[in-house]
Amino acid sequence: MGAPFDTITFLSDYGTDDEFVGVVKSVIRSIAPHVTVIDLTHEIPAYDVRAGGLTLGRAAQYLCPGVVLAVVDPGVGTTRRGIAVEVGGGQSYLVGPDNGLLAGAVAMSGGATAAVELTSLDHQLLAPGATFAGRDVFAPAAAHLCCGVALTDLGTSIDPLSLLPGLVPLSRDEDDTLVAEVLWVDRYGNCQLNVDPADVTPFGPRVQMRWGTDVRTADRATTYEGIPAGQVGLVTDSYGMLAVCLGRRSAAAELAMPVGTEVTLSAPNEDGPSTTSMPVSFTSRSAP
Amino acid sequence: MGAPFDTITFLSDYGTDDEFVGVVKSVIRSIAPHVTVIDLTHEIPAYDVRAGGLTLGRAAQYLCPGVVLAVVDPGVGTTRRGIAVEVGGGQSYLVGPDNGLLAGAVAMSGGATAAVELTSLDHQLLAPGATFAGRDVFAPAAAHLCCGVALTDLGTSIDPLSLLPGLVPLSRDEDDTLVAEVLWVDRYGNCQLNVDPADVTPFGPRVQMRWGTDVRTADRATTYEGIPAGQVGLVTDSYGMLAVCLGRRSAAAELAMPVGTEVTLSAPNEDGPSTTSMPVSFTSRSAP
Amino acid sequence: MGAPFDTITFLSDYGTDDEFVGVVKSVIRSIAPHVTVIDLTHEIPAYDVRAGGLTLGRAAQYLCPGVVLAVVDPGVGTTRRGIAVEVGGGQSYLVGPDNGLLAGAVAMSGGATAAVELTSLDHQLLAPGATFAGRDVFAPAAAHLCCGVALTDLGTSIDPLSLLPGLVPLSRDEDDTLVAEVLWVDRYGNCQLNVDPADVTPFGPRVQMRWGTDVRTADRATTYEGIPAGQVGLVTDSYGMLAVCLGRRSAAAELAMPVGTEVTLSAPNEDGPSTTSMPVSFTSRSAP
Repeated sequence: MGAPFDTITFLSDYGTDDEFVGVVKSVIRSIAPHVTVIDLTHEIPAYDVRAGGLTLGRAAQYLCPGVVLAVVDPGVGTTRRGIAVEVGGGQSYLVGPDNGLLAGAVAMSGGATAAVELTSLDHQLLAPGATFAGRDVFAPAAAHLCCGVALTDLGTSIDPLSLLPGLVPLSRDEDDTLVAEVLWVDRYGNCQLNVDPADVTPFGPRVQMRWGTDVRTADRATTYEGIPAGQVGLVTDSYGMLAVCLGRRSAAAELAMPVGTEVTLSAPNEDGPSTTSMPVSFTSRSAP
Repeated sequence: MGAPFDTITFLSDYGTDDEFVGVVKSVIRSIAPHVTVIDLTHEIPAYDVRAGGLTLGRAAQYLCPGVVLAVVDPGVGTTRRGIAVEVGGGQSYLVGPDNGLLAGAVAMSGGATAAVELTSLDHQLLAPGATFAGRDVFAPAAAHLCCGVALTDLGTSIDPLSLLPGLVPLSRDEDDTLVAEVLWVDRYGNCQLNVDPADVTPFGPRVQMRWGTDVRTADRATTYEGIPAGQVGLVTDSYGMLAVCLGRRSAAAELAMPVGTEVTLSAPNEDGPSTTSMPVSFTSRSAP
Repeated sequence: MGAPFDTITFLSDYGTDDEFVGVVKSVIRSIAPHVTVIDLTHEIPAYDVRAGGLTLGRAAQYLCPGVVLAVVDPGVGTTRRGIAVEVGGGQSYLVGPDNGLLAGAVAMSGGATAAVELTSLDHQLLAPGATFAGRDVFAPAAAHLCCGVALTDLGTSIDPLSLLPGLVPLSRDEDDTLVAEVLWVDRYGNCQLNVDPADVTPFGPRVQMRWGTDVRTADRATTYEGIPAGQVGLVTDSYGMLAVCLGRRSAAAELAMPVGTEVTLSAPNEDGPSTTSMPVSFTSRSAP
């Protein structure tokens, strides 16, 4: 049997200031020199399993077949399991800790068809400490899968239903409003909500947003540049989700809307003082 | 016909905190698995088309033949055109938005010999939103070019003369001075000016610099280490341009000389209090 | 003779905001298109030869055979030598400045078996300035070695014993204590000491640490998660060294223990007020 995969997509919270990412790639290349590693990102905030899982889930549909190696692993060295998960009956594999990190990508890939706990010491590096499972356990597993080693050779089969699920907050209807949450703030400061744009269509072309003590009316827009100057826009982002945006400025910073902010969406309030044309005051609210 | 190119050089303002760069590479690899992607940088400041264009222009002469993929695209989703530009009669291609970003590199490569607007939907990804042209339009175009797809299959031919030019400020003679501008501040704080070192040769080994309300006399030097301690140096940098430098310290920070600063160069003033030997006062001017 | 190496491992202090790393890779690819470059890190603090050397030394045992290209080079353009060093009788090569940067990795690889000064202009790029030896001297040398060019074709043979050594501080016994130093602070704020864990075994499961005016008693622990909440842990890190850690929090920031801090280790003091159970006060000491 030949080498079934030549791509490993790699996500972690290692950052790139230290040599961690490079060492992991060296370990992969020592085992599977035919493999190309694609860095998804290594700037997941340290220990932030949820952010890592959401990033993997967003990217999943765009990844080429192969092995996903994902390491955000606050419980490294403890009893949390290291796992490899098969999806699509062997079309792709995901390798990482069993802490929910992989769950979103597994779901986006159609669900797990098999899984093992990475218990085979023959497929790990001997290590002086127990703190760098990316190098010692996960990278070797990913590399061996790319060389055609069978999933079940890497460890003990486990029930895919026993894998820790990911926790993705769902938006909810409440009276005539939709209570949502900021899932992700991207480099440009756009705030992705856990909202399908179709769900706010009934509210019309303008949507009222309440968060904290703030209220704003936002305009639906197709592109960032289509947002009128000084107005808040609601754009269907590149993943098909609703995002709060300001043209070329950071909505997250200027509206004080970090990840996790609860945002209540509704039709504009017809009563009381209208806020639909009130421009954002950029000076009264500085970036954090 | 075989695959004509196996290298894509990739520059963007995506940063590496999000998954954007990795997703673009996955899309490229899905279409053109034989291609190696070289990251030029993804840390162009968000929306800064000029900085991106200058970076591409500096690098152009060192790039191996292939396809350049460049995305700094504040107008994404609007009527600005997506383009692919042929240089050298097909020796290389550049793909990106038609906003001046590619212009410097095209000029450094001998000028455009053909160009198309990327209108072929057969060579793009269907996308839920209109905001990630790097993934949906530009990466597929670059990958298809590497697979041997003809430029004219990617869209409608356009006149290369219709491409938006880049804006590079030129230094100018004014009386007995040369009025220059800081084009680029590198990691070490060296300030590249838009000045050919030969143009300041008439001023002699010491050159007076005026910017804002500051006046300093700088010494011409061959290397950073050749700058006397506490003095400002004018070094011919690695791209053959004149740069304002301090040995192992950031000239940009300590002299308050960010990108865009206008700097007037002249022969040292023989009259009035000499400044030629006045050391830089590091304590009176802190980094920004 | 075929191409002997297809991997270059690349470390520098270039950062990734500028195009330096990408240009170096383009130069490599132009000369040696069969080579894959693995980035170890480019975020070594500017000019910090010691930090670069320690990073290379840590990674050395995990690198696949090939060429190491390392550039932290404050003396670029001066009389400091550019060198290529053979280790293992040709098993691998290291290329960079002769300023101690390579010394740790050379030692970890069994020592130099040959070395040259990079004087052959036929194997360098003609350059307008003398400030970018990574691009003009070191990258071409590394690439040519990967293509099978003999070490001695790259320049003049020099005595490996003449290479500048690296400076690694050793811990020392002093009375009944061990005087150590923080070698490295990683992304998670763990502080690696220059201490073999076996050397503190005589102190028992709890070890007293003194640094600056602070005294704390730390618990030996196997994993980060094994550190009791609010306590300081001493963990054997992934390189087999002793590291000062707080569970999921930055020890370096909260204990004010940056690189270079001298830390004196001893058995807990049985006299006087015990500090063994005093939790770290997180509020009285903010991150730097």
